[in-house]
Amino acid sequence: MDFLKPETVLDLANIRDALVRMEDTIIFNFLERSQYFSSPSVYELGKFEIPNFQGSFLDWTLMNLERVHSQVRRYESPDEVPFFPDEILPPLLPSINYPKILASFSDEININDLIKENYIEHIVPLISTGSGEQPENLGSCTVCDIDNLQALSRRIHFGKFVAEAKFQNEREKYTKLIQEKDIAGIEEAITNSAVEERILLRLIEKGKAYGVDPTLKFSQNAQSKVSPEYLAKIYKDWVIPLTKKVEVDYLLRRLEEE
Amino acid sequence: MDFLKPETVLDLANIRDALVRMEDTIIFNFLERSQYFSSPSVYELGKFEIPNFQGSFLDWTLMNLERVHSQVRRYESPDEVPFFPDEILPPLLPSINYPKILASFSDEININDLIKENYIEHIVPLISTGSGEQPENLGSCTVCDIDNLQALSRRIHFGKFVAEAKFQNEREKYTKLIQEKDIAGIEEAITNSAVEERILLRLIEKGKAYGVDPTLKFSQNAQSKVSPEYLAKIYKDWVIPLTKKVEVDYLLRRLEEE
Repeated sequence: MDFLKPETVLDLANIRDALVRMEDTIIFNFLERSQYFSSPSVYELGKFEIPNFQGSFLDWTLMNLERVHSQVRRYESPDEVPFFPDEILPPLLPSINYPKILASFSDEININDLIKENYIEHIVPLISTGSGEQPENLGSCTVCDIDNLQALSRRIHFGKFVAEAKFQNEREKYTKLIQEKDIAGIEEAITNSAVEERILLRLIEKGKAYGVDPTLKFSQNAQSKVSPEYLAKIYKDWVIPLTKKVEVDYLLRRLEEE
Repeated sequence: MDFLKPETVLDLANIRDALVRMEDTIIFNFLERSQYFSSPSVYELGKFEIPNFQGSFLDWTLMNLERVHSQVRRYESPDEVPFFPDEILPPLLPSINYPKILASFSDEININDLIKENYIEHIVPLISTGSGEQPENLGSCTVCDIDNLQALSRRIHFGKFVAEAKFQNEREKYTKLIQEKDIAGIEEAITNSAVEERILLRLIEKGKAYGVDPTLKFSQNAQSKVSPEYLAKIYKDWVIPLTKKVEVDYLLRRLEEE
């Protein structure tokens, strides 16, 4: 997949390969986060006094990191979506001028707030090593959270490419569903239960392989750092449904572009 | 290991566990970097025109990231060493007041420049997917490089804790070697070849387990994303020798503290 060649990005086999590779990134990041406690004070608005800033410790760090990354062109790339779109800065380097792959409104499809909410409420408890605080690890914990959020955001917003590819492959069928605002019909059209089932099984296998020191595999305490079943649950309950939400949101506006 | 309790940090069994866990972080990060080409323009001084900055694209990004991280107390932690110690900023949050674990001069033991040099020259070619450039991936590549450098720096500078623990365990023996400036003797005293051999073997096992999608394990093309032998080589030729350099540098000054 090469974002300078639109036809490689809208090839469903390439999209699938990219999504499979992203599972590794997400699992590696979750395993890193599993070194720390849930650390609720990281997420609490106004918990720490930060000059000229209302928000959580995580928000402050994420926003400032996005400001640095925006200057090295991160958010020019069509597969990167900022959490603070109003706070990012112009790139220091000449723009890349990516060819148009997605519809013109695609930057407006941004569910990062929803991803962050679900991450904090549902995912952190499943991947942290216990509930509670370790004051000296708040920074490390936040750095891991940011990696997780960015990896989840990229994975979930990849739904835009899935949606565009599916639309182009079955233009008539989707045009009709969109004109009828048939959300249930669109959801059904974009769902492939057999593929979803395979994703969940693969996550369990990857969780077992990546989450345990292989030289301890046959020792008594060789537990995975994050339960492989939780990885599957996280995808089933949040990653896959949120990806579909992005696909539906995108498709519902797709005819603006025709 | 709890940095608020010095006795847990200077326990050689805890240090060993921490170093073993860091192998996972380093391997996960290398596997992420292996998605990209070597991308030499990231490392070339003055390759891109960045206002008010002389240095490489990597340097600019790393320095600005360290500025953000320093404000959330990263470099207060005794196991974190900045690449740009003169550019970091004071923390926004109240200091943690870590108890004293290392000698007072320990912040002056900083071989990050040497780590960066070795990383760029020797390690990048072994972990990237091919040599050459992909202009649209320079940012992603840099983000991975920063994760790698920070993980390597933490691992290698952990030598300070190893050195302090060994010194306290065999005070008389080390005092004599240090007084005699017997560098070869110090190197011999801190070396445990059997342990090093086990590290290399474990890296190969971890490389095989973490570097391959386990559901493809028995297919014909299930190559690891980074050669497990390269992981062992990276440790043997750079990580272990540089960690020993930190230990020796620290010990040579250790009597200043008595």
